[in-house]
Amino acid sequence: MEQRISLITLGVADLNEAAAFYEALGWRRVPAQEGIIAFDLIGQTLGLYPLEHLARDMGLALSELGHGAMTLAHNVREKDQVALLLQAANAAGAEVLKPAHDVFWGGHIGYFRAPDRCIWEIAFNPHAPLSPEGAFRWNGYG
Amino acid sequence: MEQRISLITLGVADLNEAAAFYEALGWRRVPAQEGIIAFDLIGQTLGLYPLEHLARDMGLALSELGHGAMTLAHNVREKDQVALLLQAANAAGAEVLKPAHDVFWGGHIGYFRAPDRCIWEIAFNPHAPLSPEGAFRWNGYG
Repeated sequence: MEQRISLITLGVADLNEAAAFYEALGWRRVPAQEGIIAFDLIGQTLGLYPLEHLARDMGLALSELGHGAMTLAHNVREKDQVALLLQAANAAGAEVLKPAHDVFWGGHIGYFRAPDRCIWEIAFNPHAPLSPEGAFRWNGYG
Repeated sequence: MEQRISLITLGVADLNEAAAFYEALGWRRVPAQEGIIAFDLIGQTLGLYPLEHLARDMGLALSELGHGAMTLAHNVREKDQVALLLQAANAAGAEVLKPAHDVFWGGHIGYFRAPDRCIWEIAFNPHAPLSPEGAFRWNGYG
């Protein structure tokens, strides 16, 4: 198995409401088939897809599906961008679970829950600077 | 908000068991702090982290966290690799939820649930060829 994730699919209750949130934060979708919304990221895609279709495709009951045991983090380039981005997410309809705060490993982070129920971490990690194009790796780009 | 996901964190019950599964499929971890396991992917990292720590960090009860409403897909380069990879995942301890099958949009996919409860889709998409390095975007690399 090569070491990559091609597509992250968020199962959402309301496709248009979910998309509006990411678009309010400045993301741009790519042309996609009816019934799915796609945002190309760095070397992968984030897809929005109706939750009941996702459950059917996986062969699971809707009641088996839940959020939060997997989270997505978006790292920013400067410390003060964490609070600003949490504020923007809140204005776009997200619930801030944890405001921006320093953490023991030297970072500065916060969490929000998007209208689609997906939980995002916004992080500044001084030990792992991003590449010029925004790529992340655990021990940083030098 | 720039258009990227830096880190995908899987909250897992057993860190070493979860890591052993991905390593059995050929993935290699990068040096990381005690208490977290990191696999660098293309421009992002997959992290394994204890579920109870993730819940605490997010300020949520463990009972609020669930799997399956967000799935990760790994796309392969050839159709027959879907069944082979599902078989390898099963041998490494995963439960196959849906064996390899053709889908209406022309692809060939299957689903497995990893020992860490994360649900993965293995997909061959003839309309979206991968880049030479394995990167994916919705409408493919030409």
